[in-house]
Amino acid sequence: MSVYQATASAPVNIACIKYWGKRDTKLILPTNSSLSVTLDQDHLRSTTTSRADPSFTHDRLWLNGKEEEIKDGGRLATCIAELRRLRRDVEAKTGAPKISEYPVHIASFNNFPTAAGLASSASGFAALVKSLATLYELPATPSELSLISRQGSGSACRSLFGGFVAWEMGSKEDGSDSYAVEVAPREHWPDLHALICVVSDDKKGTSSTSGMQRTVETSPLLQHRIKEVVPARMKAISEAIRARDFPTFAKITMADSNQFHAVALDTEPPIFYMNDVSRAIIAIIVEYNRASIAAGGSIKAAYTYDAGPNAVIYAPKENIKEIVDLIVTYFPQSDNFKDVFNLFSGAQPSGSLPSGFNAAVAKKFEVGAVKGLIHTRVGDGPRVLQESLLGPNGLPLEH
Amino acid sequence: MSVYQATASAPVNIACIKYWGKRDTKLILPTNSSLSVTLDQDHLRSTTTSRADPSFTHDRLWLNGKEEEIKDGGRLATCIAELRRLRRDVEAKTGAPKISEYPVHIASFNNFPTAAGLASSASGFAALVKSLATLYELPATPSELSLISRQGSGSACRSLFGGFVAWEMGSKEDGSDSYAVEVAPREHWPDLHALICVVSDDKKGTSSTSGMQRTVETSPLLQHRIKEVVPARMKAISEAIRARDFPTFAKITMADSNQFHAVALDTEPPIFYMNDVSRAIIAIIVEYNRASIAAGGSIKAAYTYDAGPNAVIYAPKENIKEIVDLIVTYFPQSDNFKDVFNLFSGAQPSGSLPSGFNAAVAKKFEVGAVKGLIHTRVGDGPRVLQESLLGPNGLPLEH
Repeated sequence: MSVYQATASAPVNIACIKYWGKRDTKLILPTNSSLSVTLDQDHLRSTTTSRADPSFTHDRLWLNGKEEEIKDGGRLATCIAELRRLRRDVEAKTGAPKISEYPVHIASFNNFPTAAGLASSASGFAALVKSLATLYELPATPSELSLISRQGSGSACRSLFGGFVAWEMGSKEDGSDSYAVEVAPREHWPDLHALICVVSDDKKGTSSTSGMQRTVETSPLLQHRIKEVVPARMKAISEAIRARDFPTFAKITMADSNQFHAVALDTEPPIFYMNDVSRAIIAIIVEYNRASIAAGGSIKAAYTYDAGPNAVIYAPKENIKEIVDLIVTYFPQSDNFKDVFNLFSGAQPSGSLPSGFNAAVAKKFEVGAVKGLIHTRVGDGPRVLQESLLGPNGLPLEH
Repeated sequence: MSVYQATASAPVNIACIKYWGKRDTKLILPTNSSLSVTLDQDHLRSTTTSRADPSFTHDRLWLNGKEEEIKDGGRLATCIAELRRLRRDVEAKTGAPKISEYPVHIASFNNFPTAAGLASSASGFAALVKSLATLYELPATPSELSLISRQGSGSACRSLFGGFVAWEMGSKEDGSDSYAVEVAPREHWPDLHALICVVSDDKKGTSSTSGMQRTVETSPLLQHRIKEVVPARMKAISEAIRARDFPTFAKITMADSNQFHAVALDTEPPIFYMNDVSRAIIAIIVEYNRASIAAGGSIKAAYTYDAGPNAVIYAPKENIKEIVDLIVTYFPQSDNFKDVFNLFSGAQPSGSLPSGFNAAVAKKFEVGAVKGLIHTRVGDGPRVLQESLLGPNGLPLEH
């Protein structure tokens, strides 16, 4: 008897042009297009195994070993139903086995702790959609699959591609033209690296789902951003990526992070995701770029913040060692830096400032203000894997 | 021999609709109209004595006992020159003594410490203009004098009136229609009180003069604020003031504080004036209003932040005791609360939460996060005083 099963992993993506606001909350259709960099799954990924079996009684899902309810009409149920519908089309056309009739068991695992404050919904829904699409042997392109993962979590549509990815907002009411497209593959600009600064926070932030709708309803500035600002930035940053023009890429990325947090603040009541540590990291990167330009160089790093206090710093690989040294100067680390790219030749960052850098732009924080640093780079799209997260009994294996 | 001297005091004002951006940096002409509440000089004031004397060798000025240079073509020199010019007109018309030919000595004193982080330029320039105008016996209205104080510091034009004051941006190139007007006197709504929370900050903020011009040059959102948002808010808040409609006044005040900080954040590089303590105070006021509304009441307080981390909380007098108790619960005070309105009948605030208030909206901070609380209320315009800050020798008296 055949085992109908597939496993896929999918990457995290971090937006340069931010998604904030839905025009349709059920279909998850955004009020503006967005653009992201896919991060390397070698470092950060969600992995999902899906199995269809006639002995299963109903669809079930486990996240990091803990069962989650699949609510009728909810986002998980919608994604599973959409993929099953496509399988039925395949079965009707090709006579393939009718595994769409079997319940599925799905086990998903993130290799980064939830406490890191990194959104796992994008990689999670992308891995789920990719594993089911592989199980069902669907003849779907990544853009077609992105239409489905979008309905799980908006930004998940962008995790169906590697490299540099645009989510075109589309204009149709049924959402059929609101999907992800590749702007450039990772191989186009492999030198682009990312340093994630995991920032400690003592307050529960507003969820992005409720926060963005409050912004849509109450921010007088959001409509101007949507109509006038984002379309021009999408065009300009796509050109910068194609030209591997880091300074332009960086300027737009920082400006759009700022503007996303500006419209969050223009919301009633106001939404704050960045805290004093986030602000200090911005001041450090601004000064790092200023000192570089003053010395005849150009912009060397770009910060960006999602709906939380963590900083993601994009920079060409050659600058990352300097940036890590800079960050640990202000934010002493309790744990060893995981030097996966061997920047420090096996030693640890000692903490030093680039020449011309004004040390007074921030105070030195206590150990723990930045809880950890993750160094990664632009990565590839979902991968199909041979491993399994489900045991022979159809239940998740221990991790 | 006559002594030609006059002393005046002028109040601090705190804007509800914020001034941020100049269309002419020399004349200090703003990109939008603004509106403020004048605070009571019984608590916060600048006092200035101006004396004209033929024995003086040149114009001199002391601020809090320390001599400040009067730079040629600078803001101080401009204000003095404008008032002297008006005096010359009076002399020419009426044959009054030609004291415009005498150098002046000016001594100014703020009764609040600079360390409190309250802008003293508005009250300072208003007191300077009022004292010189009194010395020169100018037949000028407060709006006419506001044209001059505006050239010292933009927001100083609003300190020429008590009560509720609009600074009409005007449209003329020479600035002759950019002045302050009274929206309502203090007697119209004497029940409006203010609680200033002096917030500790460990970073030097961007000066408002340079910050606002960076916003004008780089923020894509500012133009939308100027053209679309502020004109409607000016009209709506003026109506709310005339109707003594606190909930509407409060909603607009909070929204405009948020939007001012939003456009500061939308600046390149971004400008932050609020810190984690400021954010916590916002969360507390938002929750205080939410709990009130949930209990069938209405909005009870409004926060507003200028170009720094201090909160100013506007509220009807009857709510201030509750608000002080709320603030000291989260921000324990080292010094006794100065209970000038006898809210606590001689005792100290004990720290308690209103019923239905969710205590988890903020953490309890260390002593010193809020360094002090100043309770005041809507106040009157500049006052002419009999006291003198200059001694018989023409030098400032000790304070």
